[in-house]
Amino acid sequence: MANPKEPEIITDKNQMREWSRSMRAQGKTIGLVPTMGYLHQGHISLIKEAHKHTHLIVVSIYINPGQFSPSEDLSTYPSDFQGDIDKLLAIPGGVDVVFHPYNLYDYGNINGVEPIEGTSGSCVEERQLGHETWIRVEKLERGMCGKSRPIFFRGVATIVTKLFNIVDPDVAVFGKKDYQQWRIIRRMVRDLDFAITVIGSEIVRDADGLAMSSRNVHLSPEEREKALSISRSLSRVKLNAQNGQISCKELRNSVTQEILEAGGKIDYAEVN
Amino acid sequence: MANPKEPEIITDKNQMREWSRSMRAQGKTIGLVPTMGYLHQGHISLIKEAHKHTHLIVVSIYINPGQFSPSEDLSTYPSDFQGDIDKLLAIPGGVDVVFHPYNLYDYGNINGVEPIEGTSGSCVEERQLGHETWIRVEKLERGMCGKSRPIFFRGVATIVTKLFNIVDPDVAVFGKKDYQQWRIIRRMVRDLDFAITVIGSEIVRDADGLAMSSRNVHLSPEEREKALSISRSLSRVKLNAQNGQISCKELRNSVTQEILEAGGKIDYAEVN
Repeated sequence: MANPKEPEIITDKNQMREWSRSMRAQGKTIGLVPTMGYLHQGHISLIKEAHKHTHLIVVSIYINPGQFSPSEDLSTYPSDFQGDIDKLLAIPGGVDVVFHPYNLYDYGNINGVEPIEGTSGSCVEERQLGHETWIRVEKLERGMCGKSRPIFFRGVATIVTKLFNIVDPDVAVFGKKDYQQWRIIRRMVRDLDFAITVIGSEIVRDADGLAMSSRNVHLSPEEREKALSISRSLSRVKLNAQNGQISCKELRNSVTQEILEAGGKIDYAEVN
Repeated sequence: MANPKEPEIITDKNQMREWSRSMRAQGKTIGLVPTMGYLHQGHISLIKEAHKHTHLIVVSIYINPGQFSPSEDLSTYPSDFQGDIDKLLAIPGGVDVVFHPYNLYDYGNINGVEPIEGTSGSCVEERQLGHETWIRVEKLERGMCGKSRPIFFRGVATIVTKLFNIVDPDVAVFGKKDYQQWRIIRRMVRDLDFAITVIGSEIVRDADGLAMSSRNVHLSPEEREKALSISRSLSRVKLNAQNGQISCKELRNSVTQEILEAGGKIDYAEVN
């Protein structure tokens, strides 16, 4: 491809803020695509969507410790920064900035506080950096993924707010693969009066039907085969529902049965 | 006074946002002084402080239902909008905008949700408006005033964030009379990366020593006399500490004793 656009790589939040401010002063609009890196076609589709709405595109790459509990996979979350940059270069129109901060919860340890006793914190509390402000979307964060990951959406809502305040975008794009997250971000933007339009982008799947996800790299061929039971069963009950099968309970049972038979372990399945 | 500056009165949040955006585009900086109205000399001092830092001043007047529990005094909180405007006219330099929204938690009831069972909510949940996003400054909100008012700081942090997102100020001024609140706002601004400088302004007292507060209007002469034991005892132990009395316990006991003897009821007294 001729002349791919080299993104500016910014690691400092004040520099990021200055960039946005100067672009705004020139009348430019800014789209933000927040990611944790290890980019795949799902992320690329978010960036392409963002291109439809704003003059400039910022992609953030930041593995957010605030959404991992100490028992989860923060240390093994995949990353490949140079590979990510190469993928961004290949997108038509490219991206303008890659915001890649080192630690958004480190304030120089001036006001270090210990974790609150008797509560379950994230990897941020574990590191005792003094960060203690968290956003809760109190109804939507309950249930579904929130049941097995009680501090997950707190961490997501908080880092998204931080990124919004640093990047100051007009538009932000999120994937509907993480459907509960997408709903939570939209609710938060409404409830906190952010002047930001949140756009949801459809799931991108691999040829075999599996929804693209950075963590898929950890799947062995056997695990991947098992995982296909998720998309397969969901597609099937979608078709069943379209053909008139209206019992949510039966549709749900049909999903759980197929996944369990494939050897999967189910946190939840909901059909509403 | 000749030519007092008439503030523009804005009630609509989108109109408020547009005003800020157009002023920024002209290179103006904006100071915000959030109030619940019924203005007194304490508020006036915050506005005078704000004038030192920015070209333009926005005063918000909004009695925030999100910081009142249903058992508290939302319905009897004093208000006098025209009197407030008159006081603002008398300030040298005046103010540019009075932001006076009707209900910042009403989103047209599109997404109405019920209060969560078994939790103590504010007057916002009681009204079932669907707002469900709340900001918690998890350590600082505990203790002191937070003990007797468990949802108070959640409501304050949340409304301040909403006002920040609507008004988009460069500087915001808060009174140190509400010391825990001031600390919480500063921590929140740091933790959520707001590009806003928070300034704390000193307590303003009436001639008799009582800290100015809108709710003082509710005090009978006898109650006011009792209330003076608070400032009197605090001034005394401040002097004692300056003179070398270093036992926090003794200093605290001396405060509580004087207030109790005056007939007061103490939620907490802390000397650190």
